[in-house]
Amino acid sequence: MSEQNKIPYKIYLNENEIPKQWYNVRADMKNKPAPLINPGTHEPMGFDDLRPVFCDELIKQELDNDTAYFDIPQEIRDFYKMYRPSPLVRAYCLEKALGTPAKIYYKFEGNNTSGSHKLNSAIAQAYYAKNQGLKGLTTETGAGQWGTALSMACAYLGLDLKVFMVKVSYEQKPFRREVMRTYGASVTPSPSMETQIGRKINAEHPGTTGSLGCAISEAVEVATTNEGYRYVLGSVLNQVLLHQSVIGLETKAALDKYGIVPDMIIGCAGGGSNLGGLISPFMGEKLRGEKDYRIIAVEPASCPSFTRGKYAYDFCDTGMVCPLAKMYTLGSNFIPSANHAGGLRYHGMSPILSQLYADGYMEAVSVEQTSVFEAAENFARTEGILPAPESSHAIRVAIDEALKCKASGEEKTIVFGLTGTGYFDLVAYQKFNDGEMTDYIPTDEDLAKSLASLPKVD
Amino acid sequence: MSEQNKIPYKIYLNENEIPKQWYNVRADMKNKPAPLINPGTHEPMGFDDLRPVFCDELIKQELDNDTAYFDIPQEIRDFYKMYRPSPLVRAYCLEKALGTPAKIYYKFEGNNTSGSHKLNSAIAQAYYAKNQGLKGLTTETGAGQWGTALSMACAYLGLDLKVFMVKVSYEQKPFRREVMRTYGASVTPSPSMETQIGRKINAEHPGTTGSLGCAISEAVEVATTNEGYRYVLGSVLNQVLLHQSVIGLETKAALDKYGIVPDMIIGCAGGGSNLGGLISPFMGEKLRGEKDYRIIAVEPASCPSFTRGKYAYDFCDTGMVCPLAKMYTLGSNFIPSANHAGGLRYHGMSPILSQLYADGYMEAVSVEQTSVFEAAENFARTEGILPAPESSHAIRVAIDEALKCKASGEEKTIVFGLTGTGYFDLVAYQKFNDGEMTDYIPTDEDLAKSLASLPKVD
Repeated sequence: MSEQNKIPYKIYLNENEIPKQWYNVRADMKNKPAPLINPGTHEPMGFDDLRPVFCDELIKQELDNDTAYFDIPQEIRDFYKMYRPSPLVRAYCLEKALGTPAKIYYKFEGNNTSGSHKLNSAIAQAYYAKNQGLKGLTTETGAGQWGTALSMACAYLGLDLKVFMVKVSYEQKPFRREVMRTYGASVTPSPSMETQIGRKINAEHPGTTGSLGCAISEAVEVATTNEGYRYVLGSVLNQVLLHQSVIGLETKAALDKYGIVPDMIIGCAGGGSNLGGLISPFMGEKLRGEKDYRIIAVEPASCPSFTRGKYAYDFCDTGMVCPLAKMYTLGSNFIPSANHAGGLRYHGMSPILSQLYADGYMEAVSVEQTSVFEAAENFARTEGILPAPESSHAIRVAIDEALKCKASGEEKTIVFGLTGTGYFDLVAYQKFNDGEMTDYIPTDEDLAKSLASLPKVD
Repeated sequence: MSEQNKIPYKIYLNENEIPKQWYNVRADMKNKPAPLINPGTHEPMGFDDLRPVFCDELIKQELDNDTAYFDIPQEIRDFYKMYRPSPLVRAYCLEKALGTPAKIYYKFEGNNTSGSHKLNSAIAQAYYAKNQGLKGLTTETGAGQWGTALSMACAYLGLDLKVFMVKVSYEQKPFRREVMRTYGASVTPSPSMETQIGRKINAEHPGTTGSLGCAISEAVEVATTNEGYRYVLGSVLNQVLLHQSVIGLETKAALDKYGIVPDMIIGCAGGGSNLGGLISPFMGEKLRGEKDYRIIAVEPASCPSFTRGKYAYDFCDTGMVCPLAKMYTLGSNFIPSANHAGGLRYHGMSPILSQLYADGYMEAVSVEQTSVFEAAENFARTEGILPAPESSHAIRVAIDEALKCKASGEEKTIVFGLTGTGYFDLVAYQKFNDGEMTDYIPTDEDLAKSLASLPKVD
């Protein structure tokens, strides 16, 4: 094939081809995702119930199950132009190294300072807050990807930002903390002494190193008790999947440009923001009966919400201040083993993806972390990108599927989401390089115990 | 202006527009750079003299002052396609924040796992080594950018790689070390007990934390005493500037596409690899009398080779095993103050750039590190990219020039090189965020002392 006609290594759209609208997959779902409900009354949360916590425009997006397309405001599109369109990469070198007839593509979302796709929703959420005349935002962050993304968005728009960072990450992973500070965010280790809930947790568990659920509760408290502040969240919510649809829309536009039709689409799944965004336009075609694709969610064996969780209403945070969401969950007090380095540690899953999975539109597989890092190393050495551990879950399954094609001789087209880079995960890589990484799978008893904490909802 | 006609935020070339040849600026220089000479005899080093240390093809490139263009082998171009063409970015957001009528562009070389432009020469050097049938390569690295780039190239080609990493960086900056290991390189803290020179230095200076010059000497010793190994270097050398011309050629092609003619081109200068590559085609036009541009080298005030150094033959390493090079130098035993966090710590400068500077084709300015980090923070918050401290020297001067335009009302076009990202420099950013960064300028006495070590060459 001549160099001119060959599919390039990287398919870039033009700046003008950045989507002008987000796509809301809920509009094409026959069974809509279950609504958020009040943890006390179990009544569905309406616009007014959510206003103290979230920005108005974002609540509208959260609750709207019918509008298929939402215009992307010009200011957000301009911000997107600083790091989008992101490339759809043909993994020629990986294909060659594997000796597979499969054609492998990945949508690479890591080429921005936040290092992941999180920025797509961060700028949208910050924009609507600014537009509402708010002073600032609060949020929580674990390892710091979401906090970094939101810091960048708030710096760009001149919004104040207060991040509660899980204490153990604040102390042991100081680098993302410093990125956030460079972007002007204030970063507080959680649990702190600045909130009621933080003081309570510190009193009850002296010396605790914190958890994501606790940091959420602190961030929500500060947002609801300070004039001009709201709380924002980087995954799970319907609005986040809406914003992240930009990933899938670009992917589809790039594939369409070359007449490529994928056989399967693979993504890692923590709270579901990347996977939900990546698959959305493809899922839309599937829901409308226009096309069929295999859609595969990959999760860690140590935190297996889809494959071993229960589809039920559960708390989103450990402080139990947030609404209940119906989702595949391991129970809100589930915490993956400390030796799990691969991210994707959230106990629940996006309600949209949960409903789609329950209805049989998606598959899910779980993988163990040593094999994930083997795939990551293989990918880094052949494709030149050091992947985030989270993203490497998708790489693992993409490689496995490509090897099945090698065995069968099938020339399948595989698309996967490479959500981010691993530059801030080198402690985990070091463990792997030193041969000290181990796997962990929760026992049935572990899961039964954490699932016993599910609230009773009729 | 309609969205269609506006210059985009990022000008991307097509993959087929990646240069097919490197440009050798020496071909257009009337005064050629001075040759490398033997430290003992002071005779110019010829092909045979250099063969024990360097790969054959690279020596040819090193010594060739006349051939204007060298074909880029297809395998290198294929590797380039994994991360090139790199974008030429219009800094719309920075312009707006500064309120300047200047038009600012930057060529961004940081979107690859090595985090900098170093990969452009690493793959070239590794390719020629592989092609010569060698088993492996040795090199030194300080903070690790070059070592990381070479690790990626060697992993891709299946070459063995031994990196001597300055001991203090090996211990205090473990992350780039782990990236190198993930790419299969062996990384040894220098001075080690594996080489004669290392054992000697350890004996003479017990507890020493090493230096770049010492690591060079160890890497050269291993290359010359092991069958099938050669030594490679990431900057200073003519061959490196040749490979890095890909930066400038792409920049020029992108500008030409939109009919943009820069008034000035700004780059940071350590050993000169980025600056030399970025300016090469523009310098070629200037040397041939076709066009005129202001070309500005920016160096740290704490390591001011151009602005306060001497143009003379000097040692390239502290072990004094390498050939002598004629260059602007501060003396091979010059070491910038430990509080200098901004990179660009090499005592010398590319012989090509040194000759061009001596002949008046370039300007040079030095800047202090606190003002460099102020510029870095400003850039990060407006343009969304956390820059490497090295690159931020160029940002500082680009901002200063843009502010001069604001004062004068001139709509000048400024192009600068953004060589890399600062993801592995967060200890320095933390210092800045905490207000603990200080500046340091060597005294005239300091410089007189280090310049006293210059070898006597007639």
